[in-house]
Amino acid sequence: MPLTARNPNESENEQDASQSGDEKPVLIEIDHVAIAVNDLGEAIDSYRESFGAVVDHREVVDSDGVEEALLKVAESYVQLMAPTRDDSPVAKYLAKKGEGLHHIGYRVADCDEALERLKSLGHKVIDEHPRPGSRGTTVAFVHPKAIHGTLIELVQE
Amino acid sequence: MPLTARNPNESENEQDASQSGDEKPVLIEIDHVAIAVNDLGEAIDSYRESFGAVVDHREVVDSDGVEEALLKVAESYVQLMAPTRDDSPVAKYLAKKGEGLHHIGYRVADCDEALERLKSLGHKVIDEHPRPGSRGTTVAFVHPKAIHGTLIELVQE
Repeated sequence: MPLTARNPNESENEQDASQSGDEKPVLIEIDHVAIAVNDLGEAIDSYRESFGAVVDHREVVDSDGVEEALLKVAESYVQLMAPTRDDSPVAKYLAKKGEGLHHIGYRVADCDEALERLKSLGHKVIDEHPRPGSRGTTVAFVHPKAIHGTLIELVQE
Repeated sequence: MPLTARNPNESENEQDASQSGDEKPVLIEIDHVAIAVNDLGEAIDSYRESFGAVVDHREVVDSDGVEEALLKVAESYVQLMAPTRDDSPVAKYLAKKGEGLHHIGYRVADCDEALERLKSLGHKVIDEHPRPGSRGTTVAFVHPKAIHGTLIELVQE
């Protein structure tokens, strides 16, 4: 479907279902903002000192070569992530770009359905199929080239 | 599982306070994730097509040289932002880094108080004092060097 098929202006004041062509929004919550850091302990201390934010969950994700610390903010998380090995994607990211915003995780009701929707639109994905994420979630990454330069993780709880 | 099963905010905050000798969390919500894009209309179309996400608010912020489109996701927003002039900070960002994640806006109860806390810790800020933001908010930007490479906007509604 061409991108111009729907007029953004005419539906602006209506409810979600009618706005988006009688469908529910795919994104139901900002699950997390992920921030690549060099030293996880230092970053945790910094967020506690600066914002009174504390660790809700901490986990090593071996498959991704990262250790994560999740700081809860309402129903979302700030996800601080540091590499556990030099060849992990996050280590390479830090070496190239330094510390900073890495990706956005959006909570979805059905990861497989959301992923298939993007694939059917021709968007490039990193994970062809949903896979296990941290804290028991099911996740899939979408390539940043698909959605205006942003690395997006679809997260199903 | 609902996240509230793991973390009812009030009780945990009290527990944290007793553990750390600290006060209430400063960050009460991820207000928005801001994404710099070249063409606002194209980006809006892309988010609608990909995620059924629709524009909740749209505004030109002359002082920042940007036009924003806010797509509501639960209590947060995806903020798509495009430059309105070539010398705006966002235009420079796009020229240097291309489209992608630009900053995180955290909702706070008191922007001035949160900003003073960071300044008292010696953190570098961009706005020395709170100023008007979009949709009637009061905002202040904190320098990315302060908090592990992330440009942070404090947002008081």
